[in-house]
Amino acid sequence: MTDSTNENDERPIGKTRWELPGGHVPVDSIGPEPEMVSHEQLCLLNAGDEMATLEVTLLYADGHEAGPYPLTVAPRRVRHVRINDLIDPYAPPLGEEYGIVLESNVPVVVQWSRQDTRQTENAALSTIAYGE
Amino acid sequence: MTDSTNENDERPIGKTRWELPGGHVPVDSIGPEPEMVSHEQLCLLNAGDEMATLEVTLLYADGHEAGPYPLTVAPRRVRHVRINDLIDPYAPPLGEEYGIVLESNVPVVVQWSRQDTRQTENAALSTIAYGE
Amino acid sequence: MTDSTNENDERPIGKTRWELPGGHVPVDSIGPEPEMVSHEQLCLLNAGDEMATLEVTLLYADGHEAGPYPLTVAPRRVRHVRINDLIDPYAPPLGEEYGIVLESNVPVVVQWSRQDTRQTENAALSTIAYGE
Amino acid sequence: MTDSTNENDERPIGKTRWELPGGHVPVDSIGPEPEMVSHEQLCLLNAGDEMATLEVTLLYADGHEAGPYPLTVAPRRVRHVRINDLIDPYAPPLGEEYGIVLESNVPVVVQWSRQDTRQTENAALSTIAYGE
Repeated sequence: MTDSTNENDERPIGKTRWELPGGHVPVDSIGPEPEMVSHEQLCLLNAGDEMATLEVTLLYADGHEAGPYPLTVAPRRVRHVRINDLIDPYAPPLGEEYGIVLESNVPVVVQWSRQDTRQTENAALSTIAYGE
Repeated sequence: MTDSTNENDERPIGKTRWELPGGHVPVDSIGPEPEMVSHEQLCLLNAGDEMATLEVTLLYADGHEAGPYPLTVAPRRVRHVRINDLIDPYAPPLGEEYGIVLESNVPVVVQWSRQDTRQTENAALSTIAYGE
Repeated sequence: MTDSTNENDERPIGKTRWELPGGHVPVDSIGPEPEMVSHEQLCLLNAGDEMATLEVTLLYADGHEAGPYPLTVAPRRVRHVRINDLIDPYAPPLGEEYGIVLESNVPVVVQWSRQDTRQTENAALSTIAYGE
Repeated sequence: MTDSTNENDERPIGKTRWELPGGHVPVDSIGPEPEMVSHEQLCLLNAGDEMATLEVTLLYADGHEAGPYPLTVAPRRVRHVRINDLIDPYAPPLGEEYGIVLESNVPVVVQWSRQDTRQTENAALSTIAYGE
């Protein structure tokens, strides 16, 4: 095994700037709460040794912006954040199309997922966000 | 926090050329309109300071092309466009396999999603397009 | 609009080598044929001016290989190919896990999709393949 | 056809470091076992000539880590590994949010998929992981 797979290799992997254009939380849900509630979430992975300090901004179609929402992810941890749990400094509007802009002080990796339970059975989708 | 996460950092993120090979709008739908109608859409995010002027061309299996469809996305805005809402200069054929070629004058980020309600419950899929 | 978005810009976009690790065609289906049959497909987009000549090889868990399957995509066209339509030189085994290796003589963009109708309603997933 | 598509071209394609932030195995399932059991899996493709030796580590929200789990993928093979089949050195906790960090001694390509059968019909999602 080479150095690049050495257990002690702690070089951070990821990017510091991420975007996701396809945000739209389904308003209705069918099924037991909270597990089957329709939602969208950011999945943040900080595999490095430093605390990651992030700012998330939501951009809407009408020019409105929500945030920036400050978030932290401790070293060597994952954190999943539902969009409707972003309430500080204020809750973002729901039921509208939005895009996500995320900036971090250290490299992280960002995945976005939607759970849609508007009809009886659930649909789900997920993609790694666009990072650079 | 470093400069790269400064609130005043307005460097545009994204690419100017995007492609999506897997287009195919399901023709049938089950559920209330317009929310549950089968559709595919482009989700465009312009996080920069300049108006984005885009051209979308649809390429088909038989050599037919539809478009180019002109689109704009204002600075700091998201825009979701359903494929069947592309009607100027003319409506594209539906129910056929197509690929999307998108060019922009400034960097943007592009995501593509399909909602499929041909059977009683909805299926959904989404991916960041291919950009360079 | 800059040169990079000029209508006459015909620089090919994409990559010549693509891989997809997650192949597994569901064997059962529920619903009308052929539309609702479970399947996986490659979606190939050639936005350039030259014929694309591709070779697709399927790699299995037991060391078996299927192919290479020759494919062409004409200039400025899309082509969707179901895995179970790859029959020349011989049909690949179905119902087994496989990975896809695709090589092209010119840049193309590759997306992979699965439609799964093993239970009453359909599930679907899709992702841009890995290209370099 | 150029050298890059020559049948004898065995240059490895892929990356050696991969991450996936959105792990969360659904605990409940509906449908026949083992096919319809809710699960998440890593799909690993080694299209090169050398044995790939990998280490998979799962990072949780509370700072707990599981693994590293050693895996190998033989040359020119695919391997799909369900997360709940990772049992050596010990089974990872299920029903919790986690992220995946994967390191390989040679380039591989990594895809992640979830099958969710908590409600009657199945939902599925998949994405190429983030590699660099």
